[in-house]
Amino acid sequence: MKAVNQIIKEKPWMGWVIFFITMVVTFFIGLLASSIMERRTEAIIINKPKADIKAFESDNKVWGQYYKDEYQSYLQTADTSFKSKYGGSATIDMLEEAPEMVVLWAGYPFSKDYRQGRGHYYAVDDIITTLRTAAPAKPGTDPMPATCWTCKSPDVPRLMNKMGIDSFYHQKWSTFITEIKNPIGCADCHDPATMDLQITRPALLEAFKRNGKDIAKVSQQEMRSLVCAQCHVEYYFKGDGKYLTFPWDKGMDVDNIEKYYDAIEFSDWTHSISKANMIKAQHPDYEIYSMGIHAQRGLACADCHMPYKSEGGRKFTDHHIQSPLNNISNTCQICHRESEAELLRTVYERQDKIAEQKQILEKLLVKAHYEAKAAWDNGATATDMKPALTEIRHAQWRWDFAAASHGAAFHAPIEVMRIIATGIEKTQQARLILSKISAKKGIIEDIAIPDISTKANAQKAVGLDMPTIEKEKQLFLKKLKTDWK
Amino acid sequence: MKAVNQIIKEKPWMGWVIFFITMVVTFFIGLLASSIMERRTEAIIINKPKADIKAFESDNKVWGQYYKDEYQSYLQTADTSFKSKYGGSATIDMLEEAPEMVVLWAGYPFSKDYRQGRGHYYAVDDIITTLRTAAPAKPGTDPMPATCWTCKSPDVPRLMNKMGIDSFYHQKWSTFITEIKNPIGCADCHDPATMDLQITRPALLEAFKRNGKDIAKVSQQEMRSLVCAQCHVEYYFKGDGKYLTFPWDKGMDVDNIEKYYDAIEFSDWTHSISKANMIKAQHPDYEIYSMGIHAQRGLACADCHMPYKSEGGRKFTDHHIQSPLNNISNTCQICHRESEAELLRTVYERQDKIAEQKQILEKLLVKAHYEAKAAWDNGATATDMKPALTEIRHAQWRWDFAAASHGAAFHAPIEVMRIIATGIEKTQQARLILSKISAKKGIIEDIAIPDISTKANAQKAVGLDMPTIEKEKQLFLKKLKTDWK
Repeated sequence: MKAVNQIIKEKPWMGWVIFFITMVVTFFIGLLASSIMERRTEAIIINKPKADIKAFESDNKVWGQYYKDEYQSYLQTADTSFKSKYGGSATIDMLEEAPEMVVLWAGYPFSKDYRQGRGHYYAVDDIITTLRTAAPAKPGTDPMPATCWTCKSPDVPRLMNKMGIDSFYHQKWSTFITEIKNPIGCADCHDPATMDLQITRPALLEAFKRNGKDIAKVSQQEMRSLVCAQCHVEYYFKGDGKYLTFPWDKGMDVDNIEKYYDAIEFSDWTHSISKANMIKAQHPDYEIYSMGIHAQRGLACADCHMPYKSEGGRKFTDHHIQSPLNNISNTCQICHRESEAELLRTVYERQDKIAEQKQILEKLLVKAHYEAKAAWDNGATATDMKPALTEIRHAQWRWDFAAASHGAAFHAPIEVMRIIATGIEKTQQARLILSKISAKKGIIEDIAIPDISTKANAQKAVGLDMPTIEKEKQLFLKKLKTDWK
Repeated sequence: MKAVNQIIKEKPWMGWVIFFITMVVTFFIGLLASSIMERRTEAIIINKPKADIKAFESDNKVWGQYYKDEYQSYLQTADTSFKSKYGGSATIDMLEEAPEMVVLWAGYPFSKDYRQGRGHYYAVDDIITTLRTAAPAKPGTDPMPATCWTCKSPDVPRLMNKMGIDSFYHQKWSTFITEIKNPIGCADCHDPATMDLQITRPALLEAFKRNGKDIAKVSQQEMRSLVCAQCHVEYYFKGDGKYLTFPWDKGMDVDNIEKYYDAIEFSDWTHSISKANMIKAQHPDYEIYSMGIHAQRGLACADCHMPYKSEGGRKFTDHHIQSPLNNISNTCQICHRESEAELLRTVYERQDKIAEQKQILEKLLVKAHYEAKAAWDNGATATDMKPALTEIRHAQWRWDFAAASHGAAFHAPIEVMRIIATGIEKTQQARLILSKISAKKGIIEDIAIPDISTKANAQKAVGLDMPTIEKEKQLFLKKLKTDWK
């Protein structure tokens, strides 16, 4: 201190220099302290004691006690008020929107009921109330396998762990109706001990293994898509055991999955009008996303559907899973500098063009199914019909692959347009073949199509007795509340 | 100076302060001086004396004396060595690549000869040597109108100015063969007095006027596309005067241009096999570019095909007009951070998917033309045939709109895929109608298609005597060098 005093005495301006240096250093120390405190607060709030959540804990509320930000944002998925031009998360009666679908799925449960899903929060409610799961008289007497539950609840891994995967799939859907209570939630994607992302459903792991891929070697960024890909994929129920299987062994695109199904002669059902052996596409979201530019540039599902969020100094993943169109400022605009209006216009332009072609294809498929029926009615043989029915099978598979995938028209618009173009070509090819078959039987006039202008008319046309089906469902739901519990 | 010395004497540290301030100010003055000098150099080199170029100067060399950077880069368009997966600027025999095109254009000069253009530098040579302009015996005796010259040379505005637009179009193509010498160049896009971009061809100005748009009000950035749009558009030769006209009055998209042509019952030719009244799409490059994301985000043609370039401190527009795939670092990578390989892959993915569907459509169109011929051969009437021939007309128009436009698959891939999908639907619809017409005449079997596996076979199949056509052309080219000069 003495030396400093001596210096200041000799060079008085040095006093000011020391003063300013001290100020600058103090300022940066302040910044550092603030940063440390913030990180500490985050650490306290985010990295909670983990030991309290037991393995296979399926109750989302239990997790929510420790991970408040994530849980509170997850609860917002209960809100279904957002409605984009093409649906968003609100419930839309798709059969009302396009009654052609009733004909396309004739003989299959989707022709009874097909609504835009309300999202994860309602997964359990929605599978119970949909007409597709029918109205079993008592537990274990229904035609649907337990496999239908696989993607609906974190109770599923718990049950699989308890009874074995095979045994689980082997039960009836209604067997677990009083056991499965929690909608899709925390345990589906997270390890309760470490909170790491994890794959809890066997089908994805099995598909990886069959194709020589190691799930342990994928990056965290890939996991931010793969946890979604446990369910948001094309799959089928294999064999009598209804074993949930991904048909990825030849490739993940529409052509290679078609080849896979053809090779094993798989069909979901025989069409009740055309008698074609049909494939029902599920929701090949991960497959189509993978073929789009956003995936190719390294984005994960979570980047757009669960972006990072800051609240009160805490940064966390927004678990309000939703359409990015409802959250453009936190998703698209992280990279794209255009206005919300312009970004919406860009998305809608893609969706409009694809919807236009999809609707053309639906109308052509309706004609093909009825023209096949006419050919059968006029005495065509199975050998005559096979080429046309194969074209119908492939064409509708392509339509469904594009139509059933959530957000397909945005995720990979060029591939989806290509898929629909091939569907149009094949449907028309089927119609050409059928036209010749009928001509050989002396039938040249256009085949009459029944009135399918509304959902009700179309359901009547394909022979569905909807009042009875609905009455039975109501009775089932009533009994579920009283007798089954 | 005395006052300063006094201050320094009293407070010696002030000397250092004055020293540092002087250093900082001097540094910024240095920066300013450098900037002024650079701008001055640019000004000297770029804004040359302008009075030396007279109005309608069509000789590119004359302009090149003053605008050396631009002219030297323009001369590089003579290099045709670049060859991308889908052609680039090298000459490719498109009929050899896809002999189906010979059938699609049967009865029209394109079935004789269709090569990938070699670029602006060769515009005059290429129009003289192509078999499409046939082999007139002497000037003024050919079937092609002078309108064909419109986009080939800066001699055209000169001639139009001299003789009037109407009179120019009214001549024969061969009338100007010794008069037009300069390939597409400076005067086509620039005002010699101000070097401003300008529209020199009447059709664009007339289309703007008819649709209530004022060319004087468009931005410089729009002009950087519109000078290209003088020629790189869909157009037709209107009436007996063969007046070059843009069919934009109902809109610039494929559906609205189709409606425009239908409304005036325009056709380029009657197909020699199916007898359908066909429309030949030219190169609707500007129309398709306008429907793509790059146009929607404000890019002009010049941004990718003529990017800015720096050489020796001079910044200028690169007049080596070429595919951006040959110049990725100066074009795509200005905005996109991906590697050249990844950007190429992205472009090729779009092109591959569209090429796949385009080829499917070509094969279907070939069948439709021959099936129409069979229906005629079996006694169908014009009334029977009209619906099918209309579908063929519209389907092939859509194929051609996508196929003829340079870079269509990249410029607006979703729209182009949509166009092809509608083409497939319409072609198959035509085939269905034709199948029924033939069935009514008792013909149910598939119609035989001749061997069109090579260009030569296809040309033989459509009745072209290529050896004679080629011999006549050689004779014409020989006489052109001797007798005509």
